[in-house]
Amino acid sequence: MKTLLMLAAAAVATPAPKPALAPSEIVAAAPKGDWVAISPSDLLVMDLDSGKRVVIQLMPPPFSQGWVGNIRKLAAARWWDGTSVNRVQDNYVVQWGDANAEDKANAKVLPSGLAKVPQSEYAQQVEIRQMYDELVHGYYAYPSMTFYPRPKGSADLGPLLSGAKPYAPMEGFSHGWPVGATGPLFLRLGGKEKDFIWPVHCYGMVGVGRDMPPDTGTGAELYTVIGHAPRHLDRNIALVGRVISGIEHLSSLPRGMGPLGFYEKPEERTTITSIRIGTDVKDLARFEYLSTESASFATYADARANRRDPFFIRPAGGADICNIPVPVRVVK
Amino acid sequence: MKTLLMLAAAAVATPAPKPALAPSEIVAAAPKGDWVAISPSDLLVMDLDSGKRVVIQLMPPPFSQGWVGNIRKLAAARWWDGTSVNRVQDNYVVQWGDANAEDKANAKVLPSGLAKVPQSEYAQQVEIRQMYDELVHGYYAYPSMTFYPRPKGSADLGPLLSGAKPYAPMEGFSHGWPVGATGPLFLRLGGKEKDFIWPVHCYGMVGVGRDMPPDTGTGAELYTVIGHAPRHLDRNIALVGRVISGIEHLSSLPRGMGPLGFYEKPEERTTITSIRIGTDVKDLARFEYLSTESASFATYADARANRRDPFFIRPAGGADICNIPVPVRVVK
Repeated sequence: MKTLLMLAAAAVATPAPKPALAPSEIVAAAPKGDWVAISPSDLLVMDLDSGKRVVIQLMPPPFSQGWVGNIRKLAAARWWDGTSVNRVQDNYVVQWGDANAEDKANAKVLPSGLAKVPQSEYAQQVEIRQMYDELVHGYYAYPSMTFYPRPKGSADLGPLLSGAKPYAPMEGFSHGWPVGATGPLFLRLGGKEKDFIWPVHCYGMVGVGRDMPPDTGTGAELYTVIGHAPRHLDRNIALVGRVISGIEHLSSLPRGMGPLGFYEKPEERTTITSIRIGTDVKDLARFEYLSTESASFATYADARANRRDPFFIRPAGGADICNIPVPVRVVK
Repeated sequence: MKTLLMLAAAAVATPAPKPALAPSEIVAAAPKGDWVAISPSDLLVMDLDSGKRVVIQLMPPPFSQGWVGNIRKLAAARWWDGTSVNRVQDNYVVQWGDANAEDKANAKVLPSGLAKVPQSEYAQQVEIRQMYDELVHGYYAYPSMTFYPRPKGSADLGPLLSGAKPYAPMEGFSHGWPVGATGPLFLRLGGKEKDFIWPVHCYGMVGVGRDMPPDTGTGAELYTVIGHAPRHLDRNIALVGRVISGIEHLSSLPRGMGPLGFYEKPEERTTITSIRIGTDVKDLARFEYLSTESASFATYADARANRRDPFFIRPAGGADICNIPVPVRVVK
């Protein structure tokens, strides 16, 4: 008995293993070298008349550069000053621009020289080897499916929820951005598609409003995602950036009660004081993102997919790409 | 030439094919018989002192009934009256209950007789045949993966983004609710898991706040999802229902600036006037959901996964389960 009691006491004295870190703790511990500075020239700064600021990081090449070029011109022309947030649709988007854009007699005139960008720019064709190098991603899942008879009288939803990834054969991160991509040629039947890579609609991504196709929008009308990732918009509409600071000033706006969440009365709109490229803003914070090629990001992403910190009892074993948001921080 | 012109004229005269319906149009056209009435006894009605109302549908058996029973007791005891919305974390959750719950000296006393529900209730064990009948789902995807060498120097994220579905081997709808499930026994290595089915964390789902495990929460502290589906919470925390009306009154609240989105000052909180079971509310609207077993739902889900309405140029070919929200309507 005495021996057993002593053993028990010894066991109590053994220090407990350190609890696993939460994703936020991994990010906080990432070394300086794992962070990449975001140039102010790649930032779009939106100041609202509520005094709130929203900062958007514009997408780098090869993505959406026709629209990004237009956005730079619109900001340089101070075109957005005095425009407004016109649409807030719950679990979907916040949209801003000229409230009278559809009313030709009263629409704000666009600066000259804006590019008309073709639909083909929604995705970028890349060499297969380059695609693997771009995507920080060692593999992809091949959707081998087994079919079962469905229960009598039930609707057939199987094919809708099938596939390795419903929205893209491959997904990963390219230079800090979440992207989808086509799979390698030799596994494609018929070889009809080439190798493409495209940005995806996660929370906070910024896209270009447009009219019916083949219109692709100029970039004057922008939106950001404030709900579950509407991935069905991928390759249907241009993505040009992401909100890296202040999205709560948009996501907490009152929802519009008109069709598609547009405000019904002009006084419901939030006025935009100004939108500028970061280099034209004096008091702008400096931002960095966690390199998606870094070891810290891999550890962070692993922790997002497998929560081992003490609150969790069952790690998921995986994560969808929009549940691994790329960490961004303000440099003090 | 003349013949050709006539043919061209005839072609112009042919009526254009009807454009494909958008998901909302399919829902609007669903016959009366495809809708299922939601009993007021399964509704939890939260009135805020802003005058706004939030209506929650409670989960039916076999899911989470220990916590749902507690919630019925708490509502009957009018326990929530005068409590508040205490936490609003952007792209995550809105949480409500007793703001002093963590402060034992000032915490509101819970009614007696609340069940202490075990963690095993986060998922329900079901017969494999029953699981197929429950899930309106004719198949599942077997995650057969092919691995490629990853680019030199890059982080290995492959396994994180792998899998047919990162969060569940099977997904589908069970009596109007989005669920995940384990795959069939004969494809499981080792046979360690039994057949389970569980509700999943989509936008608007309502769950039970808890302390560190093995605590599972009583149901007095509730939250709803206001961002991208945090599916890593599945099977780690109890889901008890979903907001079917008025979520915008929660999702548009100012974000809390304290840790985890808790409000820092008491005056930032929104006071809850009352929470009642629907049968105790006089002026309550009547609600119906679109049967997930109906043909209309199958057509709707197909349209969510393959947008063919005129705005879209490229249907996705699939949808994740949280992008197929179950339609709910108010009966006029």
